[in-house]
Amino acid sequence: MSRNRFVALLAAVLAGTSWGQTLQDVMKARNLTQQDLLAAAKTYVPTGKRDDFIVFSSGGQSGQVIVYGVPSMRILKYLAVFTPEPWQGYGFDEESKKVLAEGSMNGKQITWGDTHHPAISETDGKYDGQFLFINDKANPRMAVIDLRDFETKQIVVNPVYKSEHGGAFVTPNSEYVMEAAQYAAPLESGYVPLDEFNDKYRGGLTYWKFDRGSGRIKPDESFSFELPPYSQDLSDSGKGPSMGWGFTNSFCSERYVGGIELGRPPFEAGCSAKDTDFLHITNWQKGAELVKAGKAKKINGHNVIPIDLAVKEGALFLVPEPKSPHGADVTPDGKFIIVSGKLDTHTMVYSFEKIQKAIADKKFEGKDPYGIPIIAMKDALQAQVELGLGPLHTQFDKKPCWAYTSLYVDSQVARWDYCQGKVLDKLSVHYNIGHLLTMEGDSVDPKGRYLIALNKLAIDRFNPVGPLHPQNHQLIDISGDKMQLLYDMPLPLGEPHYAVAISASTLKPGVRYKVGTNSRTDQKHPGAVRAGEEKIVRNPGKVEVFGTLIRSHITPEIIEVEKGDEVTINLTNLERAQDETHGFTVSGLNVHASIEPGKTVSVKFKAEKEGVYPYYCTEFCSALHLEMMGYFLVKPKGYVAKAGAAKAVEYTKADYEKQFKTNQDTQKVIDGVVAWITSTNFKDFPDAVALVEDATDQLKAAEEPKKKMEEAAKKEDWQNATLWAGQWWQYQVKAADIGLRAKTYLEQKGAKPTKK
Amino acid sequence: MSRNRFVALLAAVLAGTSWGQTLQDVMKARNLTQQDLLAAAKTYVPTGKRDDFIVFSSGGQSGQVIVYGVPSMRILKYLAVFTPEPWQGYGFDEESKKVLAEGSMNGKQITWGDTHHPAISETDGKYDGQFLFINDKANPRMAVIDLRDFETKQIVVNPVYKSEHGGAFVTPNSEYVMEAAQYAAPLESGYVPLDEFNDKYRGGLTYWKFDRGSGRIKPDESFSFELPPYSQDLSDSGKGPSMGWGFTNSFCSERYVGGIELGRPPFEAGCSAKDTDFLHITNWQKGAELVKAGKAKKINGHNVIPIDLAVKEGALFLVPEPKSPHGADVTPDGKFIIVSGKLDTHTMVYSFEKIQKAIADKKFEGKDPYGIPIIAMKDALQAQVELGLGPLHTQFDKKPCWAYTSLYVDSQVARWDYCQGKVLDKLSVHYNIGHLLTMEGDSVDPKGRYLIALNKLAIDRFNPVGPLHPQNHQLIDISGDKMQLLYDMPLPLGEPHYAVAISASTLKPGVRYKVGTNSRTDQKHPGAVRAGEEKIVRNPGKVEVFGTLIRSHITPEIIEVEKGDEVTINLTNLERAQDETHGFTVSGLNVHASIEPGKTVSVKFKAEKEGVYPYYCTEFCSALHLEMMGYFLVKPKGYVAKAGAAKAVEYTKADYEKQFKTNQDTQKVIDGVVAWITSTNFKDFPDAVALVEDATDQLKAAEEPKKKMEEAAKKEDWQNATLWAGQWWQYQVKAADIGLRAKTYLEQKGAKPTKK
Repeated sequence: MSRNRFVALLAAVLAGTSWGQTLQDVMKARNLTQQDLLAAAKTYVPTGKRDDFIVFSSGGQSGQVIVYGVPSMRILKYLAVFTPEPWQGYGFDEESKKVLAEGSMNGKQITWGDTHHPAISETDGKYDGQFLFINDKANPRMAVIDLRDFETKQIVVNPVYKSEHGGAFVTPNSEYVMEAAQYAAPLESGYVPLDEFNDKYRGGLTYWKFDRGSGRIKPDESFSFELPPYSQDLSDSGKGPSMGWGFTNSFCSERYVGGIELGRPPFEAGCSAKDTDFLHITNWQKGAELVKAGKAKKINGHNVIPIDLAVKEGALFLVPEPKSPHGADVTPDGKFIIVSGKLDTHTMVYSFEKIQKAIADKKFEGKDPYGIPIIAMKDALQAQVELGLGPLHTQFDKKPCWAYTSLYVDSQVARWDYCQGKVLDKLSVHYNIGHLLTMEGDSVDPKGRYLIALNKLAIDRFNPVGPLHPQNHQLIDISGDKMQLLYDMPLPLGEPHYAVAISASTLKPGVRYKVGTNSRTDQKHPGAVRAGEEKIVRNPGKVEVFGTLIRSHITPEIIEVEKGDEVTINLTNLERAQDETHGFTVSGLNVHASIEPGKTVSVKFKAEKEGVYPYYCTEFCSALHLEMMGYFLVKPKGYVAKAGAAKAVEYTKADYEKQFKTNQDTQKVIDGVVAWITSTNFKDFPDAVALVEDATDQLKAAEEPKKKMEEAAKKEDWQNATLWAGQWWQYQVKAADIGLRAKTYLEQKGAKPTKK
Repeated sequence: MSRNRFVALLAAVLAGTSWGQTLQDVMKARNLTQQDLLAAAKTYVPTGKRDDFIVFSSGGQSGQVIVYGVPSMRILKYLAVFTPEPWQGYGFDEESKKVLAEGSMNGKQITWGDTHHPAISETDGKYDGQFLFINDKANPRMAVIDLRDFETKQIVVNPVYKSEHGGAFVTPNSEYVMEAAQYAAPLESGYVPLDEFNDKYRGGLTYWKFDRGSGRIKPDESFSFELPPYSQDLSDSGKGPSMGWGFTNSFCSERYVGGIELGRPPFEAGCSAKDTDFLHITNWQKGAELVKAGKAKKINGHNVIPIDLAVKEGALFLVPEPKSPHGADVTPDGKFIIVSGKLDTHTMVYSFEKIQKAIADKKFEGKDPYGIPIIAMKDALQAQVELGLGPLHTQFDKKPCWAYTSLYVDSQVARWDYCQGKVLDKLSVHYNIGHLLTMEGDSVDPKGRYLIALNKLAIDRFNPVGPLHPQNHQLIDISGDKMQLLYDMPLPLGEPHYAVAISASTLKPGVRYKVGTNSRTDQKHPGAVRAGEEKIVRNPGKVEVFGTLIRSHITPEIIEVEKGDEVTINLTNLERAQDETHGFTVSGLNVHASIEPGKTVSVKFKAEKEGVYPYYCTEFCSALHLEMMGYFLVKPKGYVAKAGAAKAVEYTKADYEKQFKTNQDTQKVIDGVVAWITSTNFKDFPDAVALVEDATDQLKAAEEPKKKMEEAAKKEDWQNATLWAGQWWQYQVKAADIGLRAKTYLEQKGAKPTKK
């Protein structure tokens, strides 16, 4: 919109024309301030427009990942990761069950997770948008999500931890994914009494090797540093000058073991008694060399670098850090590491150069009880800045030296300059902010513009929904001199801990699979068939169905088995059209699958009880979606059918002719829509082209029932002629539906007539 | 804001002052039209403000219910109903496991649902906001949710259906909840071949008796009408003049059984061959009388009224309705029933008065094959209106006679007048709308203002997130002469089918439980204890823990059991403060619970494997949340401890004095905040009063560690004196945190100093 037009419009408002009057009325009626209107204008995304950034947020105790857009703060998807989720068929189809089964622990299927810190894969320290990693704090595991289809592909269990928290953080080319232990425990399995805590309990830091080619973590090439029984917490990877190093903070370096029930002060008292904890500095390149040289110890089959070896090889150091910190954040240039202690008002800026100098000079203030050299805080410190109460986590702006730190106790965000060591601005948030994020704010190339406060309490911010409240992610505009609060977003499911935001344009997800794909292995599915190849294969005690799905029928429509049969149903979605997902369930048997275009899935169950079990498509896919169904019947063993088919409604020649006439009329409508579309420059709109292709597919599919109709009519079989004419019409209706959508789309997008 | 002020502001814009310049810049930079800005102003809800309406939407295949606000379209909560959900502890704690177990079918635990149609309880036909009902299409079940705490309290399995779709719909005082079958099947259990379809397969309509006092469905007082094997679909209850009656539509009254794999036309062809299906009219008051009189048949222990009895007693009639309809919607005055056929362009308005007249006059055009009298369409019809392609579902405006009908194939909403039988306006939506809703739009008192289009396809509306797309709920302003599209809302999890919206002010949920409540039974929990009463009870092979949770420790902190023990952990959240939920997990054992203020839950598991299992609070509740942990240890059978306690860090008199000084300084800060708060009219703000109470609680809790500190210091036990001083300080930090939140809140709300 030109400036002139805008001014003209405002003049019109003053003159009291209807639009201006309405805006004025709306602001008055809804009690909106000017600032509110500005925030609304900054966050509103009109229909069909896109968000600029995509956030991947941990889903906390839901076990999932939450995907939302910025600035609209609309949630686009909950990705199923550690918890079965039926809409996505996750944990219901056989393919995803295998992924979840990889995450079993202690002989148990784990059906949830406590996701904490997502990380996007990086190339040269920049987000590349290819993969997402996320950890499970409750059950020490790491998951890999492919951002081509937003599906979880792999779960790996940490073989030496009993608890973790500090993952996932990636090295600058996603060579490794970092995962630190949390509550100390023996690295081996088995019972060790708490009175042997200092000697036999340990922490650790795992570097999971990621193989970009296969898109999977390689457990055999991964390794862990054994660490003292401090509660290791979050990490960050070095970059640029600090490439090859990792930084991991910790709390409870007091090694206090509570026991309030025994009259002892609780963990919280004993774990916050000292003024400092330890920042752990590890050299993963050296670690990888040690593993390659066969010097690592194997614990539970996993490569572990013992403390003494790491110390001897110069791969492990400590620096005191402020009390009870949460987050070690490397600046975009890789020169500094910022650490805040929740119970200290100061935030510390450590210099990597100074740390390296101390190491080179062997200048240590001593060793910890496990022999790890300690660099004095003063020898590592670049600056120390008083930000406020409860500083927690730091992210970066695109402006050099600008950082943002969450202040948990103050319920504020501080903007500050870590080069000059001074506070620039503060903003109150609601309430008790934990982590925060800026756009690509922990990469080498932060994008500025927005910050999101991940507040731990919402209290009064939203309409009440019972004792369990949503959380509150607040969007803040950081483009100006003062930070401005723009939007409060409730989180409806799970407590997000940490989130990362990527430029939307970097993501290139697909909308369909190559026909017959097992999406969890990216391989051709052995159960896939094409249209016309559907079959039911029977072997003693086993029935395997190879079926297909297309608007609006499932092939086959009747599946009869005997009691006791083990049944496998493979289903391929034959659609090519975007968003034409079909679902599948057999009523009452706890079976469900989601089958996106091109995907093949299988469901497997035992036919335990004789009976009639309708099955149907669970995604409203077309006007006759409700008719997209069939019957699964479990017969008594050895049952032989007695009677003929049930008597259906009988159709006459008149019925046939009526349907035929309808089809001819419908074709005329379709021809009209086609003529309109092809008279425009629709080829300039890829989405419209896709719709036209889909409509063409439907009309192609109509040819077969039409042929069958003609054959039946020739034989004066009016019953089948009428029904096949109806089926031809169903395809016509689908084609018309799609054509109308394309027409609406083109009109809205301003398609122009083309000259002929 | 006064009009003068608004005009002054606009003048300022013209003069190029900063705010106006900024709005102009934002509109230009973000390419927003005037219409977009207006829509933004109509939907934006500033921080701390509330939405006007609350929507309860089915969560489709997620098995849950989605709660969101209007006009902001922000999702506030996913309510766990049919699918286990760990954030809420649903299906993880023993209390909710019992609710889910009620929903088992065919000897199987069902771990998902396909929720379709929510209904809010009604009093005199108006939404009363007390209860929510929702059905499961995949596994014929009905759930009851209490809107005091937004928790699922009951699941009932339909004892005679194998499939359902058409629930929940309530009678005007929630006497009954309606649930219709979908795909025909034998009402009894067991196998019946498809060739006996016409004779032995049946549909049905269940009236579940709801008891408002206990807040539960009473299966024994519920009953079903046996219906022909047509696919019954959605229902609505009569009201006003039609009170006592129910209306249920159907499709596939052709009774066609497909078999495309046998060369037969598919279900979709055979089930859409006739021009009409049947609207079923049932008299539930008469039905209840028949059951009371003992005339119902028992099938699987459930009261079933056979077709012939219902016909004989005048409780069951049919009227032809347009082809493949979806939705029978009674007008707010109870006089008309509106039915649309997806494959018919017409929408029919049936007159209840005419239907009653035909019944009184015994004027029928015949009987269906099951002997049910058929009222001729012309004898029941008030009007017939051509709305467009694929008409589906109708909702009502507060303006008399105004209705809105979704047009699936046209991807449009039609506003029309059902009294005058004319179309008033149409609006395109994106894409393929299924149901729609207006505010309280199916009650006797619709509120107008907004309409939401529940579109089945989103295709290109949002940033891409892989082959599985979100759906699109579009908010439409219906307050003016022309409908206006305001907002596109992506649905991130599950496919919502139907939704209902209630005035936010009608809902009165609580924020805490009475201490020690089992929220699933609303009774005192036998495992509840108060602070200081925590204990571990050991019996052979069994260990039962009675523990508590409070910021920031779990009591007990160490739980040791022997291998093979069956372990029950009961936990009571002692908090009173709003939003102070604690979570609980034992790492690696698939245990989780969410414990809101006052709630008591129990988790139960077997200690199968010797080892060390940290446990922790999974909700970030306070600055020392990470320290809110403990150790669960599984010892070998008969193990006797050998060594003493591990050596902790040693604290000196100097350490104690340092901590003591810190505490004194902290107290001064707290006193300052308290002085500020109490100098204002904070008592006028209930939320601030609650915060002050919480802070007072924390300071009261500080008294005990302070006393223990003093005792230890007297004995010169500097170790314990230091740690207890630390614990005192932890409570001070919590009090300060809350005090600061209260101060921020009061400043933002414009609290004023009070005179003394």
